[in-house]
Amino acid sequence: MSPVQTSSRVAALKNVATRLRIDSVRSTSEAGSGHPTSCASAADVVATLFFAEMRYDPRNPQNPDNDRFVLSKGHAAPILYAAWAEVGLLKREDLLTLRRFDSDLEGHPTPRLSFVDVATGSLGQGICAALGIALNARRIKSDYRTYALLGDGESAEGSVWEAAETAAHDGLDSLCGITDVNGLGQSGPSIWNHDMEAYAAKWRAFGWHALVVDGHDITVLMDAFEEARATKGRPTMILARTVKGKGLPLAEGKSGWHGKAFKKGPELDGVLKDLESQMLPEDGPAQPPDGPRTRRDMSRPQSAPKKGTVGTPAYKLGDSIATREAYGAALAKLGDGDDRIVALDGDVKNSTFSEKFEEKHADRFFQNFIAEQVMVGSAMGLAARGAIPFPSTFAAFLARAYDFIRMACISNVNVKLAGSHAGVSIGEDGPSQMALEDRARRRAQPNMTVLYPCDAMSTERLLELMAYHPGPAYMRTSRPKTPVIYGPDEKFAIGGLKILRESPKDAVTVIGGGITVFEALKAYDQLQKIGISIRVIDLYSLQPIDSRSLLRCARETKRIITVEDHYAAGGIGDAVAACVAGSNFVVERLCVRDIPRSGTPEQLIDHYGISSRHIVSAVTS
Amino acid sequence: MSPVQTSSRVAALKNVATRLRIDSVRSTSEAGSGHPTSCASAADVVATLFFAEMRYDPRNPQNPDNDRFVLSKGHAAPILYAAWAEVGLLKREDLLTLRRFDSDLEGHPTPRLSFVDVATGSLGQGICAALGIALNARRIKSDYRTYALLGDGESAEGSVWEAAETAAHDGLDSLCGITDVNGLGQSGPSIWNHDMEAYAAKWRAFGWHALVVDGHDITVLMDAFEEARATKGRPTMILARTVKGKGLPLAEGKSGWHGKAFKKGPELDGVLKDLESQMLPEDGPAQPPDGPRTRRDMSRPQSAPKKGTVGTPAYKLGDSIATREAYGAALAKLGDGDDRIVALDGDVKNSTFSEKFEEKHADRFFQNFIAEQVMVGSAMGLAARGAIPFPSTFAAFLARAYDFIRMACISNVNVKLAGSHAGVSIGEDGPSQMALEDRARRRAQPNMTVLYPCDAMSTERLLELMAYHPGPAYMRTSRPKTPVIYGPDEKFAIGGLKILRESPKDAVTVIGGGITVFEALKAYDQLQKIGISIRVIDLYSLQPIDSRSLLRCARETKRIITVEDHYAAGGIGDAVAACVAGSNFVVERLCVRDIPRSGTPEQLIDHYGISSRHIVSAVTS
Repeated sequence: MSPVQTSSRVAALKNVATRLRIDSVRSTSEAGSGHPTSCASAADVVATLFFAEMRYDPRNPQNPDNDRFVLSKGHAAPILYAAWAEVGLLKREDLLTLRRFDSDLEGHPTPRLSFVDVATGSLGQGICAALGIALNARRIKSDYRTYALLGDGESAEGSVWEAAETAAHDGLDSLCGITDVNGLGQSGPSIWNHDMEAYAAKWRAFGWHALVVDGHDITVLMDAFEEARATKGRPTMILARTVKGKGLPLAEGKSGWHGKAFKKGPELDGVLKDLESQMLPEDGPAQPPDGPRTRRDMSRPQSAPKKGTVGTPAYKLGDSIATREAYGAALAKLGDGDDRIVALDGDVKNSTFSEKFEEKHADRFFQNFIAEQVMVGSAMGLAARGAIPFPSTFAAFLARAYDFIRMACISNVNVKLAGSHAGVSIGEDGPSQMALEDRARRRAQPNMTVLYPCDAMSTERLLELMAYHPGPAYMRTSRPKTPVIYGPDEKFAIGGLKILRESPKDAVTVIGGGITVFEALKAYDQLQKIGISIRVIDLYSLQPIDSRSLLRCARETKRIITVEDHYAAGGIGDAVAACVAGSNFVVERLCVRDIPRSGTPEQLIDHYGISSRHIVSAVTS
Repeated sequence: MSPVQTSSRVAALKNVATRLRIDSVRSTSEAGSGHPTSCASAADVVATLFFAEMRYDPRNPQNPDNDRFVLSKGHAAPILYAAWAEVGLLKREDLLTLRRFDSDLEGHPTPRLSFVDVATGSLGQGICAALGIALNARRIKSDYRTYALLGDGESAEGSVWEAAETAAHDGLDSLCGITDVNGLGQSGPSIWNHDMEAYAAKWRAFGWHALVVDGHDITVLMDAFEEARATKGRPTMILARTVKGKGLPLAEGKSGWHGKAFKKGPELDGVLKDLESQMLPEDGPAQPPDGPRTRRDMSRPQSAPKKGTVGTPAYKLGDSIATREAYGAALAKLGDGDDRIVALDGDVKNSTFSEKFEEKHADRFFQNFIAEQVMVGSAMGLAARGAIPFPSTFAAFLARAYDFIRMACISNVNVKLAGSHAGVSIGEDGPSQMALEDRARRRAQPNMTVLYPCDAMSTERLLELMAYHPGPAYMRTSRPKTPVIYGPDEKFAIGGLKILRESPKDAVTVIGGGITVFEALKAYDQLQKIGISIRVIDLYSLQPIDSRSLLRCARETKRIITVEDHYAAGGIGDAVAACVAGSNFVVERLCVRDIPRSGTPEQLIDHYGISSRHIVSAVTS
């Protein structure tokens, strides 16, 4: 390009940025809330990205070869919407529906919108998802690039540094972060304010290529993106020094304007007048984003995905296998037939047995070391781009990623979580490793499937079902070996249960899950000897739950006893009580009611009141 | 000291380290599980710390002026126990009770032991707690120093970097971290292996003084601790290059030995023989830890703590005040009378109103920027040392610190959490900001107190009660303003409720909390007009819960309707159902059953089925 062309192009991009500011201000004022100043600091970066850097089909945001953009600082949603209006995908007048109940232009972006991969708004998550999106490019052998826009405030979240270390370790040079360093958080200056070298030193120490630039200089930004593209073997972070509220003199660089819309009337009019005066003369529009595709054919045919299968698991009745081991075996088989299946680990693959997947599919196995937030966040990104990710660790340590799981549910992506070593049945390691509230956490999310197989056969079957059931799902597995009780022809269903013992004269229905199923079966045998029949249920699907069967059993036996290797709240007891609420049934709960201590599995199962002895006692009392 | 004395002292310390290894190996072999190789890499560091560096009363680990030690790599618990046996606090033979049900020497350390401040075992948390412990020294004007021993594997946790940035920001030079860089994680090499400069660059970039040392050279370690003590204005991280399994030739530096005890018999005997051969001749014992106190008088008298009070809040019936604002006002007043009260923020003090506390007690207000894990982790440390910390942020973002809250419950420390902006009643910001499962998370912990005041008066009263109720507690506050309905003489209790409307002919008991109390009161008025009486309950204490009153109401009205600004699972519905399970009552639940979207508070409360209209409809159906 000649200097004239360049200067004309820069003027056009500056004007795009000004229009993005105008739209952000207008839409937030119309809504009466939102974050116009956080949009304004990012406007030049967003304009440059969308109109001079990214390659994508503006008519089809879901083209698998599009460059991807993740707005990690989700509160700047209005500028994202404004950019897609500028691109032509949204109507400009629709921007004024921001934050309205009848509009998909929500306060923070969600995947209701075709151009949003994952919901953001809980800070420090978008960069983790972007990492997963970048990993997905490797999976589908695409050279698309992934861009994530972060705030400086959110860089205080530890998850950002988990993403930093993992992306560097993976050598993800297709990932480019931009930090909008406007120096102001919500309640005061951000932790490192405008100390640009403090940011750069951190990213460099974590193995990234880092550049410090003026975030309001379009030419400098274009060069920075070019440098990022030319950087191989490591990701790039562009640290853009910006001014919060840039272009809005009333609020520019001032504290106290975070998350405040300008008042309609003279205040808004003045701001808009200021902005309009910033428009520059230009020769033509900014280079359209659907310009020549120099890097790749974006219309390659997509093959229809194929499903995998676990086949017929080779377990024999009575074999003794831990469900966590069956999990690994099943996942490896499922991956044979479906290259969308990927696994993510947090340095416990030899305990969760996800190493069985790695052995066969090393290119689809992603190691996150001991960093559960980025493991789940990255899985969100992978899922958003068509993969079926299985992040796994100890169930206790998934607690570390709880907020990410919450956002995965809001995004409604196919993240398939597995948590091993649940409950007091792990024994000597003690309460920090036990996960006695994992199902309370999962069940609290309305769209989360929650499974807990008791034997190897049901683990394999449920894993296959879970992989292809839409939306987020969780499988709890156990540490101890348990006997195989299901044959190869047994059918399972998401939302199902198994009645293992049943007779017309059952005095009580005993409902267990996982290891307590075996305690219930032991209790059955003991009670048979004294002439008492009980019904025994393996409630392997906690959410959805088979209310109809549970109600039938409740009607037939009147009394229900739930028994679970879990705290009192949020597990089988609560779920069953919710099913049968409104009827004349007694629900008694056997569960762990105190914070446990170390001991052998048998001691703990008995001491905390969930062993066969306690079931017998509850039935006969 | 003369060179002879020095060399003799070093030999004595080397022998302490060898004895710590012997005890760690013996105790784990006796238990049949545990992490002897993770102990062995840290033995020289621990020996130096306990016998050449730290100042503490070996007979009283709780002396408030003792230097503190936090084992962030909690799986190395056996060496911590061995060190206190070497000090003389534990009997050496008791070490062989490790991991037994009848022993307090659990698999990972818990505060059942006098020398453990906070439970560790979920990695990356101890350094956050240590930060809080170091802040506490400032609070009580003590010059005690705080030491935290981390693993290299755990340094991948983002929470470590949250602690890094916060401690540097606070200039906490009394905090000294030691990373035991043994290069091996559980399932393979740790993320940065033995690249010592990679670690050092990161800590330096985060503003710490960082030293790289040979973690098995006692003299070098003593010098490093001295350098740390001499470093002012910033914390120090000593990066100790070590060998996993050091001193145990069978496992030294080898993969595959993580978390494995040596088998009793020839394997163990061989390891112990190797260790015993490493004992050096020495002139006398290592300098005892209770040597001359050059830095401080450790026997200063302690004044009895004084309780604060909120006095008589000046609200008038009908005033309109958000409970989050009343929270801030009450906290500030409580802090006037009790210097144990401290507040921690995550850059939302102007939304949670914790800024009201900061205005009066800036020296006891700790800013963590947008880093919720370190906010709660640091509160754990403060609480363990006698403070009464109130960390607060949006209830949604406390999800980020879930695993820390889990560990705070295991530690049973006085962490008083407050989460604002709960539920769909926040309106336009959308689901990422809503916290619709916060009470499910809290209630799942057996010893967590869970409160949700509906008006400003009850907020102030409950805040005072919560501060002095032993153990962890959570208060949910709301964004919208609500009318004051309680007068200054109204009494509240942890585990109480208020019956707001009652008559002998009540058809239904309607149980709400927070903003739904007002929907229930509106429904009452509407139903009165058509001649239907309902009982209305403000269930401000969800855990503990007033089962007796709920059962009485259930018996009197038969029907119960719960209504809550929360998802179906884990909230009022489940809690009430658990109370009345086993009786002939109908429990109907009005709650948020889908993941919501943006809209006005009124639209959302109505659309998601928790408005007065829905209560009226449920009562009359």
